Amino acid sequence: MTQLKNDTFLRALLRQPTDYTPIWMMRQAGRYLPEYNATRKRAGSFLALAKTPALATEVTLQPLDRFPLDAAILFSDILTVPDAMGLGLYFAEGEGPKFERPVRDEADVAKLAAPDPGAELRYVTDAVSEIRRALAGRVPLIGFSGSPYTLACYMVEGGGSDDFRLVKSMLYKRPDLLHRILEVNARAVTEYLNAQIAAGAQAVMIFDTWGGSLAHDAYREFSLAYMRRVVAGLAREAEGQRVPSIVFTKGGGQWLEAIADIGCDAVGLDWTTDLGDARGRVGARVALQGNLDPNVLFADAETVRREAGKVLASFGRGSGHVFNLGHGISQFTPPESAAALVSAVHELSRPYHA
Amino acid sequence: MTQLKNDTFLRALLRQPTDYTPIWMMRQAGRYLPEYNATRKRAGSFLALAKTPALATEVTLQPLDRFPLDAAILFSDILTVPDAMGLGLYFAEGEGPKFERPVRDEADVAKLAAPDPGAELRYVTDAVSEIRRALAGRVPLIGFSGSPYTLACYMVEGGGSDDFRLVKSMLYKRPDLLHRILEVNARAVTEYLNAQIAAGAQAVMIFDTWGGSLAHDAYREFSLAYMRRVVAGLAREAEGQRVPSIVFTKGGGQWLEAIADIGCDAVGLDWTTDLGDARGRVGARVALQGNLDPNVLFADAETVRREAGKVLASFGRGSGHVFNLGHGISQFTPPESAAALVSAVHELSRPYHA
Repeated sequence: MTQLKNDTFLRALLRQPTDYTPIWMMRQAGRYLPEYNATRKRAGSFLALAKTPALATEVTLQPLDRFPLDAAILFSDILTVPDAMGLGLYFAEGEGPKFERPVRDEADVAKLAAPDPGAELRYVTDAVSEIRRALAGRVPLIGFSGSPYTLACYMVEGGGSDDFRLVKSMLYKRPDLLHRILEVNARAVTEYLNAQIAAGAQAVMIFDTWGGSLAHDAYREFSLAYMRRVVAGLAREAEGQRVPSIVFTKGGGQWLEAIADIGCDAVGLDWTTDLGDARGRVGARVALQGNLDPNVLFADAETVRREAGKVLASFGRGSGHVFNLGHGISQFTPPESAAALVSAVHELSRPYHA
Repeated sequence: MTQLKNDTFLRALLRQPTDYTPIWMMRQAGRYLPEYNATRKRAGSFLALAKTPALATEVTLQPLDRFPLDAAILFSDILTVPDAMGLGLYFAEGEGPKFERPVRDEADVAKLAAPDPGAELRYVTDAVSEIRRALAGRVPLIGFSGSPYTLACYMVEGGGSDDFRLVKSMLYKRPDLLHRILEVNARAVTEYLNAQIAAGAQAVMIFDTWGGSLAHDAYREFSLAYMRRVVAGLAREAEGQRVPSIVFTKGGGQWLEAIADIGCDAVGLDWTTDLGDARGRVGARVALQGNLDPNVLFADAETVRREAGKVLASFGRGSGHVFNLGHGISQFTPPESAAALVSAVHELSRPYHA
């Protein structure tokens, strides 16, 4: 494999010295970029885009051609795994993802099995390989998956939800069924991430988008415990390099110490947590990733710069910080704001690494 | 005024000894009760129900006739104040509250003024008086308002939002405009709550439903600072009794110490915070209210009892806890579950007060 030209992101995740704070943005290949929308239009649909390695490669690289980002992230959907389990993922216009066959009862649960990442998810590993070739060592490539609990939310609800009534009803009424789903999901996610690593992913991230909706004790039992299993099952090295793992529970700032304890290399944080406080709480156990409110990008370049500076100042001197937004970039973001952010972070962070 | 027959709720808010842990439920007068739906049908609409004191009184008392709750809460909407400012509140079918005239620019902001609670909001204070008469001292009556920031979210967005793009764009681009809205809102909320107290409310609660969507520093500047002003301006006594105040920022568990510092008597918590940890963090500064996940009420009575027991055990011995859900009760809740919860809390809490 080609030598990495910029390993700042990987070094920061491992809390090794860097010259500046690396930055990438969740959903950096997305609808705020006109070139993304053009490719998506050509693909015909979001799913066709995600399932065609050449097109997934194209959109993965688009933001890197605009901004000097320090990492690429596989363009895919977090629901590829349950789709590969046969649940029938589809996108209803303006409604977000849905499943044709949600998992609601004992019979549905009994049918679940972890998909073979080399078969049903081959389009993902093919995309990873193709993106690695196309990157030619510019920056590292991040692979990712939804967390076992977040996948279960969609699988049981059959789509998004604002109260998670169905999955939480199962949690409180039939915890055995939910645990069975989570066991299958944990195995599936582990194998899926390992397949991405084998295909060339140089770091992996687990998106626990909905873990933050759980009660504090339920979070530990139904989300964190299964992310711990996934992390424990991940390949630690590939191509002779450590493959760092990042765990991000949106809304999980209160549980940071517990998350930092599951064996991951880095913890993602949203904007509700002060990064300096967070660093004080976890010490040198993990790196931290985050945590600008993406809505800052609706302001002028000067404000973007000032708010980015506040995040950097809050983390303070030394390594172990990967700059990111605290959530995916909004489709309404002016690309100039993203450019202003990336250059502000690169420039303003240097004194903290001197 | 009639002597209170059950002052357990007020005593707990003031951290005075009680025989058991009092309980009420957010949105306890609501769509999960068939008798509520019958009254609402008679009223013709939600707004007609909220704006007709006799009907608001009727639904406020309904849950008390079913369950031995320890407090009543005024039936009203959190958006009465901006409606009284002339923004034109309406409810689009299945879409939640909307405003005909949202507040988006300098001209809109310049027109804002705090409404006269004795005029535009007279229907609310009339309802408070009528409910007090109807309660005849059974339990205390809670008055309430949305927080200045939460009201601003609806006023700027023109309705609910999943990303708060418009209000946060204003926050980052034109903080001066948002501060001006919040100043008006803080004055309006203070006068509104004081009018409710004058009409007979025996405790007041500020619902900061959307403060938890803010970045940690923005929360302090744009939500907490204005709630502090409101609390500082509240009448502390009425009818010779202290009128306790409760502040509830949903998703604000990380900021508990700061919230406990603004002069309120109690802080509401959602289910993501461990009540025992929270108590350790605030000590005897404030009482705590919460914090069962309302989804527990979809399980059987035995599970409801067990989960209620866990919340009580987490708080532990002594006074200063008002049991509640961490969010409004779901419209899909079986009323039997609410009954099971109230009796479990009353029964299981006695040993902690012995």
